[in-house]
Amino acid sequence: MNEMKIIFLSIMMLASSAAFSQTAIKVNQQRIEERIFELAKFGKDSIGRGYRVAYTKGDIDGRSWFIGLMKKAGLGVNIDYAGNIIGKRKGKNASLKPIAFGSHIDMVPDGGNYDGCVGSIGALEIIEVLNENKIVTEHPLEVIIFSNEEGSTIGSMAMGGHLTAEGLKQISQSGLTVADGIKAIGGNPDSVQYCARKKGDIKAFLELHIEQGGILEKENIQIGVVEGIVGIIHWEVTVDGFANHAGTTPMNMRKDALLAAAKLIVAVNEVINSYEGKQVGTIGKIAAMPGAYNVIPGKVTMGLEIRDLSYEKIWQLFHDVEKRADTIATSSGTKISFVHRANESKPALTDKILQGKITASATALGFTHKLMQSGAGHDSQEISVIAPVAMIFVPSIGGISHSPNEFSKAGDMANGVNVLLQTILAIDKE
Amino acid sequence: MNEMKIIFLSIMMLASSAAFSQTAIKVNQQRIEERIFELAKFGKDSIGRGYRVAYTKGDIDGRSWFIGLMKKAGLGVNIDYAGNIIGKRKGKNASLKPIAFGSHIDMVPDGGNYDGCVGSIGALEIIEVLNENKIVTEHPLEVIIFSNEEGSTIGSMAMGGHLTAEGLKQISQSGLTVADGIKAIGGNPDSVQYCARKKGDIKAFLELHIEQGGILEKENIQIGVVEGIVGIIHWEVTVDGFANHAGTTPMNMRKDALLAAAKLIVAVNEVINSYEGKQVGTIGKIAAMPGAYNVIPGKVTMGLEIRDLSYEKIWQLFHDVEKRADTIATSSGTKISFVHRANESKPALTDKILQGKITASATALGFTHKLMQSGAGHDSQEISVIAPVAMIFVPSIGGISHSPNEFSKAGDMANGVNVLLQTILAIDKE
Repeated sequence: MNEMKIIFLSIMMLASSAAFSQTAIKVNQQRIEERIFELAKFGKDSIGRGYRVAYTKGDIDGRSWFIGLMKKAGLGVNIDYAGNIIGKRKGKNASLKPIAFGSHIDMVPDGGNYDGCVGSIGALEIIEVLNENKIVTEHPLEVIIFSNEEGSTIGSMAMGGHLTAEGLKQISQSGLTVADGIKAIGGNPDSVQYCARKKGDIKAFLELHIEQGGILEKENIQIGVVEGIVGIIHWEVTVDGFANHAGTTPMNMRKDALLAAAKLIVAVNEVINSYEGKQVGTIGKIAAMPGAYNVIPGKVTMGLEIRDLSYEKIWQLFHDVEKRADTIATSSGTKISFVHRANESKPALTDKILQGKITASATALGFTHKLMQSGAGHDSQEISVIAPVAMIFVPSIGGISHSPNEFSKAGDMANGVNVLLQTILAIDKE
Repeated sequence: MNEMKIIFLSIMMLASSAAFSQTAIKVNQQRIEERIFELAKFGKDSIGRGYRVAYTKGDIDGRSWFIGLMKKAGLGVNIDYAGNIIGKRKGKNASLKPIAFGSHIDMVPDGGNYDGCVGSIGALEIIEVLNENKIVTEHPLEVIIFSNEEGSTIGSMAMGGHLTAEGLKQISQSGLTVADGIKAIGGNPDSVQYCARKKGDIKAFLELHIEQGGILEKENIQIGVVEGIVGIIHWEVTVDGFANHAGTTPMNMRKDALLAAAKLIVAVNEVINSYEGKQVGTIGKIAAMPGAYNVIPGKVTMGLEIRDLSYEKIWQLFHDVEKRADTIATSSGTKISFVHRANESKPALTDKILQGKITASATALGFTHKLMQSGAGHDSQEISVIAPVAMIFVPSIGGISHSPNEFSKAGDMANGVNVLLQTILAIDKE
C-alpha cells in the first residue's frame, strides 16, 4: 500500500462509519403497522366497509385520535382555517424555515387503509424516533395532515392559496358543502385565504405514499422516487349516430353510434400506446341511448381521460385522438365531438435536489429504487406551488388502491419511513 | 304476318284484357289516408305523443272506432277470447275455408301512425271496395285485428295456440298483466286456449305492413314481397376485467373490460358482415362498471342480438362471435361470457305459392317489387304455425319506425292495398 492508498481508505472508512451512524437510527415497523390497523377502525359504513370520508364522523374521530398521538409525541398541534392538522416540533435554529412532511387520513367510500395513512403515520413515526433518539434538528419540523384530500385536495389547495369561493361551495362526498365540511372539522371557511403559505415559507415538503400502481411490486423495487405528479385532463365525448330498428335496418344503412364509439375506444388505446413514455389514457364511462337489445344506438356519451407529466404531450395525444375520431366519424356516418372539462389538473414536477437526497438515502439504506411518476393526484401537487416538494413511494400489492383490497407490507412501509427519516436528516444538515 | 303470329297476338290481347278487367278495381287512396289520420287521434299521452298502447284507453277507443267502421262495412264482428277483433264477410261457398287478412292497431309508446295501421285500414278498405263493386268472393273473408302486437304478438300467439299461462301473467306496457289487459278489451283470459285455430282452419293469412326499414325507399321499389320473418336471438354478454386506478396503472398492466368490450363490438360487426346475406347483428346496450373517468372499467355488460331467416345461420354467426371473443379475452386478460336469453323467436317463412301470387299481382299492376325479409317480428309469424301466410311491404320514409317520424306516402299505401286486393282475388279464384 502506498501512502495515497492509505489516505484514500481512511477517508472511505470514515465516510462509511458516518453513513453507518446516520442510517443506524431506524423507525419502529411494528408501531407503524399497529397504528395503520388502529386508524382503520375509524369510519365504517353500515355494512362495515371503510368510510372515513372527509367531514364525516369517521374522519372527525380518526383526526381526534391522530391529534392525540401527535400531542403525546410532544408536537404543538393546531388546526388551520382549512382544517389541516399541523403539528410543530421546534428546531435548534428558530430562524430556519420548517421542513414539512405528511399526507392525509381521509378516504374514498369503501376505500383502503394505506392511501394517505402510510404517509401520515410515517410522519408521526419520524417524530417518535427523533424523540427516542433525543435528536433535535436544526430546522423546525412540521407534520401536516391535509384535510379532504380525496375530495380534490381541499386542504393542500388552501395552503397553496388556490382554494376559491367556488371550491368552497362544492358538495363534498359527505353531503356537506366543502365550507360546511371545513367547519365540521374545526376550520373556518370564511378565513381560508389566511392559511395560504407564501412561497419560501416552507424549506421542503416531503410526502411518503403508497404507489397505488403495480410497478414497484412487479419490478421488485422497494422505493419509488417520484419525478412528478401527472397532469389530468378529462373530455366528455359524444357520438351522434341515428337510432333505428335493429331488425329492419340493413348493416350497410346504419349509423351505429356504439360501433363508432367502440372503434374510438380502440383508437384511444392505440394512440396512447403509440408513443414512448408513461402516459396513460382511459375511457372509463360510457352510456348508449336508447339502450335496448333491438335498437341501434343513436347516441353514445363517454368520458376520456389522459394523464402525463407533460401538459403539452397530453394535448398532442388528444389531437391524435381527434384525428382518429374524424376518420371514424366519416366512415361511420356519425358525428364525434369532445368537450374539454373544466376540472383539469396541471402536471407538478418534484424538486430535483430533493429527488437526489431521497435516492441517496435509499442507496445508503441498501434499498432498490427507481425514478417514477405519480399517476394519481396528491397534496404535494398543490404544495409544489409554494415549496420544493418530493414524494417517496412504497409498493402496493397488486397495484390495488381505492379498494378494501389496498395493501402494503409492513416492511415496505417501514422502508419508506426510514428513507423519509434519512432524507429529512440530510435536508436538515445542509 | 303469318297465321301463327296472328293467333299468338290474339291470345296476348285476350290475356291483357282479362288482366285489365281484374286490375281495374282500385282501392280508394283518399279514404285510406283519411282513416290513417283519424285513427291517429286515438291514444295520446299527456304531452300529445302517440300512446295507443295495448289495453290502455287509447287502444280501447281506437278499437271501438274501428269496430264501428267494420260494422258499417257489413262485417259480422266479434271479439275472440284473446281480444282479437274478427270481422267476417260471407262468401258464395260456405264450405270453403276463409281467406284472412289484417294486422294490428296498438302502438309502442311515442310510436308512429303507420305500423300495423296500414295493414288494418288496408284490410277494411278491401271490404269497402268489394262492397262498392258488388263482388262476392267464393271464400268467406275475415278481417283480423290482432290484440297487443307490440307487447309481443299476444293476440296472434293465442290464435296460433302458443299463449301460455306464463305469458298471461306478464306485465304489459299498460301496467296491467296481459290477462287483465285482455279483459279490458273484451276478451276472456281464462278461455284463451279456445280461440286457437287449428291447422287448416284458415286458407291463407295475408298481412300488409310498412317495411320499417329503408330498403324499398333507397332502391325506389314500390312493393316488398316478404320471404320470411327473421328469427331473433338475444345474448347477455359479460366482460370481466379488473377495475383499477386509471392514473397509476400502466397501459401494459391493465385488464380493461371496456377496451375488450369495444374490440368485441367491432368483431361482432365484422362477423356479421363477413357472410353473404341479409343477417343483422347489433349490440344495442352497454354498461361499464364502476363507470368513472378515473377508473379502468372492471366489468362491462352488453346486449347482443342476431337476426336471420335461418336459425342455423344465427348460431353459426354466434359461434364465430364466440371465437373472436375468446381471442380478445386471451389477449386482454379478461373473461367474456354469453348467456342465451329465453325470449328467442324462431324464423317464420312465408308461403311460396302466396309469394308468387303477390309478385304476379304487383307485376300485373305495374309496380316494381322485390323479395325481401322482414327484420321485425309480426303477427304473421305466429299465424304461420296454423296457416300459409304472406306479407306485403310498402316503403317507410327514411326507414324510420316506432317513432313519431314514421311515415309512408298515401300512394305507396294504396299500392300495397291494391296488391293485397288482387292477391285475395287471385287466391279466391283458385
